[in-house]
Amino acid sequence: MDHIIDAGQVEQHNAARRAALQADYDALGGMLSRRGVDIEALTAKAQTFAVAVPSWGVGTGGTRFARFPGRGEPRDVTEKLQDCAVIHQLTRATPTVSLHFPWDRPADPKALREQADALGLGFDAVNSNTFQDQPGQAHTYKFGSLTAQSQAAREQAVAHNIDCIELGKTLGSRGLTVWVGDGANFPGQHNLRGALERYIDSARAIYAALPADWLMYIEHKLFEPAFYCSTIADWGTSFAVAQLLGDKAKCLVDLGHHAPNTNIEMIVARLAQFGKLGGFHFNDSKYGDDDLDSGSIDPFQLFLVFNELADAALRDGAAFKPAYMLDQSHNVTDPIESLMSSAVEVQRAFVQAALVDRAALAGHQEANDALQAAQTLKHAFRTDVSPILAMARLRSGGAIDPVAAYRASGWREQAAVKRPPKAGASGSGIV
Amino acid sequence: MDHIIDAGQVEQHNAARRAALQADYDALGGMLSRRGVDIEALTAKAQTFAVAVPSWGVGTGGTRFARFPGRGEPRDVTEKLQDCAVIHQLTRATPTVSLHFPWDRPADPKALREQADALGLGFDAVNSNTFQDQPGQAHTYKFGSLTAQSQAAREQAVAHNIDCIELGKTLGSRGLTVWVGDGANFPGQHNLRGALERYIDSARAIYAALPADWLMYIEHKLFEPAFYCSTIADWGTSFAVAQLLGDKAKCLVDLGHHAPNTNIEMIVARLAQFGKLGGFHFNDSKYGDDDLDSGSIDPFQLFLVFNELADAALRDGAAFKPAYMLDQSHNVTDPIESLMSSAVEVQRAFVQAALVDRAALAGHQEANDALQAAQTLKHAFRTDVSPILAMARLRSGGAIDPVAAYRASGWREQAAVKRPPKAGASGSGIV
Amino acid sequence: MDHIIDAGQVEQHNAARRAALQADYDALGGMLSRRGVDIEALTAKAQTFAVAVPSWGVGTGGTRFARFPGRGEPRDVTEKLQDCAVIHQLTRATPTVSLHFPWDRPADPKALREQADALGLGFDAVNSNTFQDQPGQAHTYKFGSLTAQSQAAREQAVAHNIDCIELGKTLGSRGLTVWVGDGANFPGQHNLRGALERYIDSARAIYAALPADWLMYIEHKLFEPAFYCSTIADWGTSFAVAQLLGDKAKCLVDLGHHAPNTNIEMIVARLAQFGKLGGFHFNDSKYGDDDLDSGSIDPFQLFLVFNELADAALRDGAAFKPAYMLDQSHNVTDPIESLMSSAVEVQRAFVQAALVDRAALAGHQEANDALQAAQTLKHAFRTDVSPILAMARLRSGGAIDPVAAYRASGWREQAAVKRPPKAGASGSGIV
Amino acid sequence: MDHIIDAGQVEQHNAARRAALQADYDALGGMLSRRGVDIEALTAKAQTFAVAVPSWGVGTGGTRFARFPGRGEPRDVTEKLQDCAVIHQLTRATPTVSLHFPWDRPADPKALREQADALGLGFDAVNSNTFQDQPGQAHTYKFGSLTAQSQAAREQAVAHNIDCIELGKTLGSRGLTVWVGDGANFPGQHNLRGALERYIDSARAIYAALPADWLMYIEHKLFEPAFYCSTIADWGTSFAVAQLLGDKAKCLVDLGHHAPNTNIEMIVARLAQFGKLGGFHFNDSKYGDDDLDSGSIDPFQLFLVFNELADAALRDGAAFKPAYMLDQSHNVTDPIESLMSSAVEVQRAFVQAALVDRAALAGHQEANDALQAAQTLKHAFRTDVSPILAMARLRSGGAIDPVAAYRASGWREQAAVKRPPKAGASGSGIV
Repeated sequence: MDHIIDAGQVEQHNAARRAALQADYDALGGMLSRRGVDIEALTAKAQTFAVAVPSWGVGTGGTRFARFPGRGEPRDVTEKLQDCAVIHQLTRATPTVSLHFPWDRPADPKALREQADALGLGFDAVNSNTFQDQPGQAHTYKFGSLTAQSQAAREQAVAHNIDCIELGKTLGSRGLTVWVGDGANFPGQHNLRGALERYIDSARAIYAALPADWLMYIEHKLFEPAFYCSTIADWGTSFAVAQLLGDKAKCLVDLGHHAPNTNIEMIVARLAQFGKLGGFHFNDSKYGDDDLDSGSIDPFQLFLVFNELADAALRDGAAFKPAYMLDQSHNVTDPIESLMSSAVEVQRAFVQAALVDRAALAGHQEANDALQAAQTLKHAFRTDVSPILAMARLRSGGAIDPVAAYRASGWREQAAVKRPPKAGASGSGIV
Repeated sequence: MDHIIDAGQVEQHNAARRAALQADYDALGGMLSRRGVDIEALTAKAQTFAVAVPSWGVGTGGTRFARFPGRGEPRDVTEKLQDCAVIHQLTRATPTVSLHFPWDRPADPKALREQADALGLGFDAVNSNTFQDQPGQAHTYKFGSLTAQSQAAREQAVAHNIDCIELGKTLGSRGLTVWVGDGANFPGQHNLRGALERYIDSARAIYAALPADWLMYIEHKLFEPAFYCSTIADWGTSFAVAQLLGDKAKCLVDLGHHAPNTNIEMIVARLAQFGKLGGFHFNDSKYGDDDLDSGSIDPFQLFLVFNELADAALRDGAAFKPAYMLDQSHNVTDPIESLMSSAVEVQRAFVQAALVDRAALAGHQEANDALQAAQTLKHAFRTDVSPILAMARLRSGGAIDPVAAYRASGWREQAAVKRPPKAGASGSGIV
Repeated sequence: MDHIIDAGQVEQHNAARRAALQADYDALGGMLSRRGVDIEALTAKAQTFAVAVPSWGVGTGGTRFARFPGRGEPRDVTEKLQDCAVIHQLTRATPTVSLHFPWDRPADPKALREQADALGLGFDAVNSNTFQDQPGQAHTYKFGSLTAQSQAAREQAVAHNIDCIELGKTLGSRGLTVWVGDGANFPGQHNLRGALERYIDSARAIYAALPADWLMYIEHKLFEPAFYCSTIADWGTSFAVAQLLGDKAKCLVDLGHHAPNTNIEMIVARLAQFGKLGGFHFNDSKYGDDDLDSGSIDPFQLFLVFNELADAALRDGAAFKPAYMLDQSHNVTDPIESLMSSAVEVQRAFVQAALVDRAALAGHQEANDALQAAQTLKHAFRTDVSPILAMARLRSGGAIDPVAAYRASGWREQAAVKRPPKAGASGSGIV
Repeated sequence: MDHIIDAGQVEQHNAARRAALQADYDALGGMLSRRGVDIEALTAKAQTFAVAVPSWGVGTGGTRFARFPGRGEPRDVTEKLQDCAVIHQLTRATPTVSLHFPWDRPADPKALREQADALGLGFDAVNSNTFQDQPGQAHTYKFGSLTAQSQAAREQAVAHNIDCIELGKTLGSRGLTVWVGDGANFPGQHNLRGALERYIDSARAIYAALPADWLMYIEHKLFEPAFYCSTIADWGTSFAVAQLLGDKAKCLVDLGHHAPNTNIEMIVARLAQFGKLGGFHFNDSKYGDDDLDSGSIDPFQLFLVFNELADAALRDGAAFKPAYMLDQSHNVTDPIESLMSSAVEVQRAFVQAALVDRAALAGHQEANDALQAAQTLKHAFRTDVSPILAMARLRSGGAIDPVAAYRASGWREQAAVKRPPKAGASGSGIV
């Protein structure tokens, strides 16, 4: 495997921190053993964790008001892969990359796959894009894509999705994520039912092109870019559509795509119960689809989501395999740093959920002992599993402190030299 | 039919207003005819409108902080029926009453039905109550009813629902509305999936007892009385459960039971499309389940809901017959006045939706002319159809101005004398 | 005054509609007179209404996901003024334009003022822009402008605001609107108090440069572009700052800049009571800062805002003169059409509020007759004042149906020819 | 000091846990010392923490739908004090009690104060109640209290507040908390400005009766019991009123009284900056004023509030002394258990905030290093300070595990025997 950051540098980084980590790890191990928990089992579990990185996440994001680019931003999919490799090299938690077409359409798919192989990376679900018009595009998506009144626009959008599948096949991907911005800005603009009927027709055409071992992930979103209604606005609609399409259609939960006050972990539980939980776009938010770093605003909610996932895994066993992906917009940080620390935050929730004493929890639930049931979750949540995460990284060949190692490596400074900005660069900043 | 308010009084009320109404009606008729609309057809349509009144709505409502009772409140179901009869006599829009058990359990169901017949009233869906403990009840619902951990509590709740069906059959009702407050106040208190599994089991037992010509209405609610999660919290869950139960299970939409910013008319469209729209609890809200008078906060939203209903009726014809009920808490007004004016507001939205030029609307939608599509709706909404509503009432035997006629009748003052307050009266104030 | 649309065309448009309007006007007049209301007084009042048009509103807006440009978009401030002149010519309700610098910085301010004079337009408050970086700008606003840690960036932002004042003086403007996107995306990124201290220092420097007859409008916004916190996030902060600055500092209320469920009319009442209501950015929204057309989502709320304004005008007399401006993003409509119909919707709320029987309302309030108080407002709101608005336009020299007259004029088609799109056009789509 | 729980029992409880605690404490101490933090200083700081317990919190709460009483509920203020003493005995974190009048009006104030002294308890701010009608009350609060149209009702409400002050003086209290439910359920019901004018007049009359060393805490709340508007709905209004009243008037922040998505820590920062932060009602919420246990839903938010408090304490020194009180409704738990664990959760946030490396944080803020600034907060937040809290309790004479010690004591079982329920007990369940 090619290392992007010099392996010696990482080794040096770890050497300077190894003793302190071991001391913290031992201290935590002692505390856990007094609770009857084996730290080694948790560390081994932590090492199994993986979350995909979105190719578009390595560029600086923006808002409708402005985008403030960073230095050394990747200018094409090849450079994006390099940045993704840095993230995985240091965290050992992000072995796959999720591509977005046409932004990431490779000139030579085979070469791209070889580059990924060399970097130890694979490809997660591919993403279609029918929320923008591309230069030279025959039919505009201004008034919708899969739901458009124009049959030609719908067919174009369907064909693009099928093209994404084809491309994904050459890259070794096994899933297609379909998110559309289709909706309306005015009451009356859409016939609400008609728009969904057209969506279902279009989705069926895409579904028909899906290979047998692929999944189609349907992503709902409450609002933006449409501001009065979105055709696939909530999990109820996404669920109903996935039922109509068939077993290979699943629902994708983006943590920022819900109405205020929504209990997201309950949606996760529902979709798991009904066999339609496809996966996640992880991020965090305070107001809308803010696409902030995972766990930065409400880390307890992220834990509660993983608590449901742990419950589902216990019930459904190996068959339960939702796809995990980060989906964030990094407007004020170095995207590589944000993605590394976000991967760690999601992994943290995964490990904390593994710490929950499920037998005790079930006992408190049966006894209607709400206080102790809640404390059972809080007890796991407030355990600082940082030493476990660091040890898992160390053992898997990553860095004890990925951000520090990254900063020490000088990667960004080198990128700033190697990658002078393109004028009017696009394909970034949108999530 | 027995008249509650003296018919002569109503006649006198109308006589004093008839000429002015006719002038307004003619003026509006002229304006409508210049738009190609026949006012007589609209008036005839308005006369077909009916919405059920909730028996508990005729008492003064309250909050967890306080209840401030009004004068002359009904003390039992017989007196409640009298108040409901006043509402229907003056509005001609509320021919049915929705009962709530055990609050309204009649000593003699046959006598109650005869009273209703004499008053020209019928019975809409009956409502079960498993969100309170009744004196002498064997098993508490403190920790849930249909979802309770305790099998005995679940069986008791199921039995109560079946008892409601039996009672409803004797009264001529044809539907059972099931709303439960079941949920949790703490993360961890419930196993989210386990609670829904128990709910489904319980609901199946109730469904099995449903007569062939009955419907079971499942009502979701985001929160309150449970504050961390509610088992039936959203339309997605209600829809999934209704699918599992069978064709006689439908979803009920209460306008105040959604997350902030939710597009309710879209939920209406979705449920209609998937054949699961059972009916409504009409009210209005600004913050939570505020149970304010229908149309008092966001009248345009109420219109947009009826716009979807008109669209569904056009598509699905006579088969499309959702149940309409008011469900409000009247804390600072005379409940009879609030229910009369709310019935009129819902009827207003019904007539305004009938005014929408659907061919023009469809044309604008096809042409992606969002502005004119929106204006087509607004044009109908801003038409002041008050003269149509008043004329419909007049022609159907009601009052031109129901609140004024009611005040003139002295009904409340007489009730205040006839119905001295019971100490610690309950069964009111909860919606 | 130069006419942009051929006067003969408008005359022809009106001629075809005059008789029907007169008939509707007379019918409404009769209805109003039966309520004791003089339609002529309302029409005269309607003719006094004016709301400013934002220069950036005449371009197609967009979201962070995409912008779908329309045909014939104005390419510079001169062309924007032409479009604004069309709006005012047909509606007679938008005599002023609000400019945004540096987007609208004229090469020759004097020439711009002469163009505006010739078109019968004046200039409303000018807007500064420190939420974007301009090409060649010395200091970035990526991490804030008036609140930036960097003193140089703060000074640059202050200097830009003072430059806007200077430019505004040459154009005859009398106000400066200050909206900053400053805030943070992460807890901890800002010292919350430190950021506001820096804001206050910067604002004081701008305030010191304000001419004696100018006002400084401070605009708050809950979120976007900052997603964890915004320095001027709510009316409380905006109010506190305006107090510290002095009498010439006022608060500006944008209808889309509040938390979900906020009672905006109450904020209007508070600011009016405390002497700090500066003015409005009118638009509508369902979710966030959606910048939809005014009155398109919640027309009753717009009416309630004007109900407060009418109350304040009654109390405070001529001294009460808040500034009115539209501030919308037109993503799927012709911006000229949206601005025309939005101006009419705001004017509609103004006239409806004038229809409220304030003596009756006060009487119901004193008697705690909540139902009749509410009905007094609803009675005014549901009056269809369209004939009054059309007659006011006609008498003031505008078009009976502005959108129809505009479409008939062929203005957009001509603009599409005269104004071929610039590559990578910016300065549009942001509100 | 009288011990409510047998001291020997507590000692026995601690003896069984002391060794494990010491081991955990030492392990944590080692980890902290590797970060340069002295655990002993933190433990000493933890011992200084105190939060008041609300007298009404020791009864089971309820909703407008139902209240499900627990066993052994206190039936009068004497029994409430006993329960409060249990909480303080075991947590050593709740030395004061906040009374609510007339619920807690003592027959003999001197005796009540002696009881409190004997139990080692003092009295925090007293609370007035004008949101309910009391039996025999001359003027109803149905239509408001401090804002009522009725001058007699306003004067009665003012007199009640002054009476609370008098009672508080005899008990050694030094503050009056004023929360009113006044508001409206319909647009138009209130003249918004008139209602606030009356509020201000009433508040001035109360303020005039305030002793020199007292504070008046003004508590805002978005909604409930009023559902269209509340007169004191937001911090802006509360702040403006507090300014008008004078230096002894401060604003009280209840964590559940805000609009969805509100950044509460920013309100804390604003009020601290402007010298008007009076104190807190701690609880947690997911939807509305849910009054859930502190830290049970969003523990990171609670930490961020304390992060602002730590910042303010650093800036303003000893002068900065906001009042801390729990204000929760315990519907499904033993209130004593909920209050004990909530006191610990608030103390946890206090200690975690003390752990923040403020110099490093300021450095990252100055460098615009958002990622490391955020991590500096998260680093403190995710430190599991449980051993510090337990050691602080142990050293102060409390229990290592308060809930376990309480359960072992049999207090509730004994109370169930000693305190048979009163029929129709009130004064509980409302927060």
